[in-house]
Amino acid sequence: MSGTRKVLQKSSKGQKLWSQAKNLIPGGNMLLSKRPERFLPKQWPAYYSKANKCYVWDLNGRKYIDMSLMGVGTNTLGYSNKEVDKAVISSAKKGNLSTLNCPEEVGLSKKLIKIHPWAQMCKLFRSGGEANAAAIRIARASTGKEKILICGYHGWHDWYLATNLSNKKGLDKMHIPGINPLGVPKNLKGSTIPFEYNDFETIKNLIKKDNKICAIKMEVERNIPPKNNFLKKIRLLTKKKNILLIFDECTSGFRENFGGLHMKYKIYPDLAIFGKALGNGYAINAVIGKKKYMKFADRTFMSSTFWTERIGPTAGLKTLEVMEKKKSWLYTSKMGKYIKEGWKKISYRHGVPIKVFGLNSICGFDFLSSNSNLYKTYLSQEMLKKGFLASNLIFVCIYHSKKIIDKYLKNLDKIFYQINKLDSKKIKHLLKGPEAQIGFKRLN
Amino acid sequence: MSGTRKVLQKSSKGQKLWSQAKNLIPGGNMLLSKRPERFLPKQWPAYYSKANKCYVWDLNGRKYIDMSLMGVGTNTLGYSNKEVDKAVISSAKKGNLSTLNCPEEVGLSKKLIKIHPWAQMCKLFRSGGEANAAAIRIARASTGKEKILICGYHGWHDWYLATNLSNKKGLDKMHIPGINPLGVPKNLKGSTIPFEYNDFETIKNLIKKDNKICAIKMEVERNIPPKNNFLKKIRLLTKKKNILLIFDECTSGFRENFGGLHMKYKIYPDLAIFGKALGNGYAINAVIGKKKYMKFADRTFMSSTFWTERIGPTAGLKTLEVMEKKKSWLYTSKMGKYIKEGWKKISYRHGVPIKVFGLNSICGFDFLSSNSNLYKTYLSQEMLKKGFLASNLIFVCIYHSKKIIDKYLKNLDKIFYQINKLDSKKIKHLLKGPEAQIGFKRLN
Repeated sequence: MSGTRKVLQKSSKGQKLWSQAKNLIPGGNMLLSKRPERFLPKQWPAYYSKANKCYVWDLNGRKYIDMSLMGVGTNTLGYSNKEVDKAVISSAKKGNLSTLNCPEEVGLSKKLIKIHPWAQMCKLFRSGGEANAAAIRIARASTGKEKILICGYHGWHDWYLATNLSNKKGLDKMHIPGINPLGVPKNLKGSTIPFEYNDFETIKNLIKKDNKICAIKMEVERNIPPKNNFLKKIRLLTKKKNILLIFDECTSGFRENFGGLHMKYKIYPDLAIFGKALGNGYAINAVIGKKKYMKFADRTFMSSTFWTERIGPTAGLKTLEVMEKKKSWLYTSKMGKYIKEGWKKISYRHGVPIKVFGLNSICGFDFLSSNSNLYKTYLSQEMLKKGFLASNLIFVCIYHSKKIIDKYLKNLDKIFYQINKLDSKKIKHLLKGPEAQIGFKRLN
Repeated sequence: MSGTRKVLQKSSKGQKLWSQAKNLIPGGNMLLSKRPERFLPKQWPAYYSKANKCYVWDLNGRKYIDMSLMGVGTNTLGYSNKEVDKAVISSAKKGNLSTLNCPEEVGLSKKLIKIHPWAQMCKLFRSGGEANAAAIRIARASTGKEKILICGYHGWHDWYLATNLSNKKGLDKMHIPGINPLGVPKNLKGSTIPFEYNDFETIKNLIKKDNKICAIKMEVERNIPPKNNFLKKIRLLTKKKNILLIFDECTSGFRENFGGLHMKYKIYPDLAIFGKALGNGYAINAVIGKKKYMKFADRTFMSSTFWTERIGPTAGLKTLEVMEKKKSWLYTSKMGKYIKEGWKKISYRHGVPIKVFGLNSICGFDFLSSNSNLYKTYLSQEMLKKGFLASNLIFVCIYHSKKIIDKYLKNLDKIFYQINKLDSKKIKHLLKGPEAQIGFKRLN
């Protein structure tokens, strides 16, 4: 390790704590996407002391503008949103749990069904993985069939990782490369089959030769939009074959419209799953769906103490109220579009080719270069110096003003200038730590 | 439906909301144990507006003393504990989630390991079912074997309900009768095998004839104490056979001592799971364990956005601090013993035979009668009239004073008097609604 790195580590309370954490917690934390190594090994601030609007303070009290994950998409209304926090604090003071149930869980269920009139019932959870596992249980219980077709990221549970039992690259394109389904029962082999987005032919063929498929679970749209009536074709086929269509809207919900992204396309699933933005930074997930399927959640056993706590549905209800009032999805989509245009201009100006992707409110870009990961790491390092948490992906929130975005783009412009000017060896030399980790790797 | 019942329903805002909830939410709520039908159908207040110490207010503003589940064992330090709430509210104000990690997750991991020196690593979750599923994944990943022996209640996930694929009564004794493993992959048949508490011979024989067993997962003690060195024999055998011993301490942890109940017996597992009381009413679970096994949590994929929220570990840290300071387990055990003695006296006085069970701090009794469920329901009804939430099980908290318990016992005495005096037909007639539901039944 070089002298510079040692100094960097020593001065950062966050990096010091992170070194301890890796010895105490397998993987160092509870979410792969928040590992410092995925952004900027040895240099990323790792921990926060406080967060407000689109600002984050690290353990040394340094303030950053978050032009990256915004809590991995949880905080559309900004960090520490006053209205949501006030409701949550009120619930905490009135008692977060008791022997009786909290009325807010009925209120949130009712609201989600009102927004999505195709659904009649709702069940609440406190993690996306668990909500996804519940939706699979419901699909299997209601059809008596077991196989699932998937396209997207749907958590960590056995049913999902089983994809890689048949083909170890099964989840590479829809999640991350290198997932080892270690510890997943081998008898689940073949129970979950991936398909690529917009590839309707594969779906059609899979369903033709296999009558044991109970559900298609997919994200409505992630990095590319649907083509050739992809969603409509799936809906028609699944209806015909008595296969449940399940949209995992944990990431896409409430970004482009008030509700699931499927509302925009007017393609209505049998079940839909929400999370992330739903509680604006408080844990809450929901599975909503048609009564004829949802009622099976009460015929199988599905129950948990902490699914009854009050903060989750309180935050959900207030978040929906504030979103509706502010029409947050219009603002974040507009600003996301502005960011995308900014990236394209900078890319063109400096002759550094990139590919822009994603919904406007969840916008990203890739460097079209064999050194893309090096450039991304360098970008994070240089932006951090300027007071930005930045990588190649932004979840836009309502506090990302034009002024803040312009400041971000101005600083980014300088980095693209450097990337064009300097060769990759020089940039590698300028990195004060290793390159960011790609894919799924064990930490040492 | 009788006129009386209609009136009762009409006057209770809680029962009215509950009727709506059953049409919106499969099963009506998120936890079987909190269904009003399990206590007092048509009459139980169902929902709370606020809760404080051992008091709960329903939606009509009626105040009750909780001499029952205390949030299903979550609130050892009472509802709305000031110190815990203050810490939680501070975390909420500083931002519950951000792109960076919260330092409290390292603090809580460190603290749990300090309390349990046999463990070196920790992973945090937000539901007991998910923590249990994670422990199973770790056991399977680290041994390459898949079969599990179980004794206790360990959640709703596929691996657990798979028990009933081979024998539909498999979970009857350790959880509740009537669980249908609907929607659980049939290929998991035989993967989880139940054994009865204190039956070491069965365990020995199962392990002798099957070399694919990777773990024994069990509650350290629920209703009866270990006999004939039961725990010690299991520990010796599992060590010899390279089988993980996993203690699910979600219910038993921090009740009789500061840490897992296994500390009291000086039998140390390979993994242990905590929850419920750990966050005093805020969602937080932990799996702690030996490094050689825990490190596999980083070789398989196990990750969730909401496992990174701040309230959970904040509440956990503060709860442990307050528990340690107040030695809550000594008080709740002493008071639980006092309640048990009170029950026995009343039972003897009125010639109504009962069987007392459980840890002192989680104490219960069963009426030794073929009308036991009728009597239990009648008890809930009559105690409710007197301002108590009561059934046949009490999770004792630090606000259950001698004065409150004496008041409770005095009221209970009158009910036992009635049960002795009146025949069961008369009592059935006095019930203003149906008897409580037993086992797992679908609601209509």
